[in-house]
Amino acid sequence: MWIQRQLELAPRPRGFHLVTREVVAALPELVGLRVGLLHLLIQHTSASLALNENASPDVRRDFETWFDAAVPERSAMWTHRLEGPDDMPSHIKAALLGPTLTLPVAHGRLALGTWQGIYLCEHRNRGGERTIVATAWGEPAAD
Amino acid sequence: MWIQRQLELAPRPRGFHLVTREVVAALPELVGLRVGLLHLLIQHTSASLALNENASPDVRRDFETWFDAAVPERSAMWTHRLEGPDDMPSHIKAALLGPTLTLPVAHGRLALGTWQGIYLCEHRNRGGERTIVATAWGEPAAD
Amino acid sequence: MWIQRQLELAPRPRGFHLVTREVVAALPELVGLRVGLLHLLIQHTSASLALNENASPDVRRDFETWFDAAVPERSAMWTHRLEGPDDMPSHIKAALLGPTLTLPVAHGRLALGTWQGIYLCEHRNRGGERTIVATAWGEPAAD
Repeated sequence: MWIQRQLELAPRPRGFHLVTREVVAALPELVGLRVGLLHLLIQHTSASLALNENASPDVRRDFETWFDAAVPERSAMWTHRLEGPDDMPSHIKAALLGPTLTLPVAHGRLALGTWQGIYLCEHRNRGGERTIVATAWGEPAAD
Repeated sequence: MWIQRQLELAPRPRGFHLVTREVVAALPELVGLRVGLLHLLIQHTSASLALNENASPDVRRDFETWFDAAVPERSAMWTHRLEGPDDMPSHIKAALLGPTLTLPVAHGRLALGTWQGIYLCEHRNRGGERTIVATAWGEPAAD
Repeated sequence: MWIQRQLELAPRPRGFHLVTREVVAALPELVGLRVGLLHLLIQHTSASLALNENASPDVRRDFETWFDAAVPERSAMWTHRLEGPDDMPSHIKAALLGPTLTLPVAHGRLALGTWQGIYLCEHRNRGGERTIVATAWGEPAAD
């Protein structure tokens, strides 16, 4: 059993955003999987996906602070400057966090830890709409 | 052919720990896969999984040193402080290394490089037991 | 439908290299997949795989600059020094970027974003030939 679909995530401000509910809502067929996996690819090079703490907004704010300090915009090291000061750092941040997530499905639900949620990591100031290719596969539940 | 199982890893001190043998021992059905994959998700946001050098303990010690320097505990940048000084840095480290590994299986064995081993990366001082959801799938070997 | 094959990538200088075409050319069976996934594992601990900007060579050069600054060779923090000053930093860089990529396949092609390409990230000065295990699986296209 294979499901593959493109999801369009509405534009979000720069930062780390919880999107678990939005992603699951767009994949109603997941409930029909007894055991399987869900793979997500964000089709961009200046935004990324992560799995982290789903409760405290201050955790997501501290993510933004740390990544901004670790990959600074104003730096003599960047030679790729054509697309603005937030562009090249966004490529590095996107590579550090990665463009994909693969998540287990058990009995029709994502088998995440209690505190885990899916982050859309928006590294551009104005990233616009972001496209995800979602692919799920596995063994269907018996009727 | 699908296998899905929860593994409980015993508490380990903060640092990077080789767990390849423990993980493989908990999945005896892998030997029955001619070709397939093994997916591991650690269901926590302050520990992570990595694949790296399996021989020298000093490599794993240097990992700890670098990550502690790159994501310092004592820093004015953290606003999420309720759970102790090792908590927020552990979320960042966990996101940098990632909570999942997907590994190929060939002829009943993990098809890793000679020097590759699975690391449990424990970022908390007292992380306690850690839960992994292991999912394997593929084509069974002919009898 | 399962495909599994070892790919040998020719030695490349230290840095970030686009290898999308080389990888796809080595997997002609991908065109026969209606829907599926391609998994790549680089079987080394001092090189990694990433998915990032496929157009501007200056982006790849800036990757090298940032990673060299973030994980410096000359540092008192390294205790693992036997294999040369570029060795231990290469393990850290490899773990940050990761040894695997899982990519969706749709209608016989990798379903990447317009600007996404596969990077071979060579962290050693002389890394030599690099081995990738490629595994693809999915539903075949109807004839």
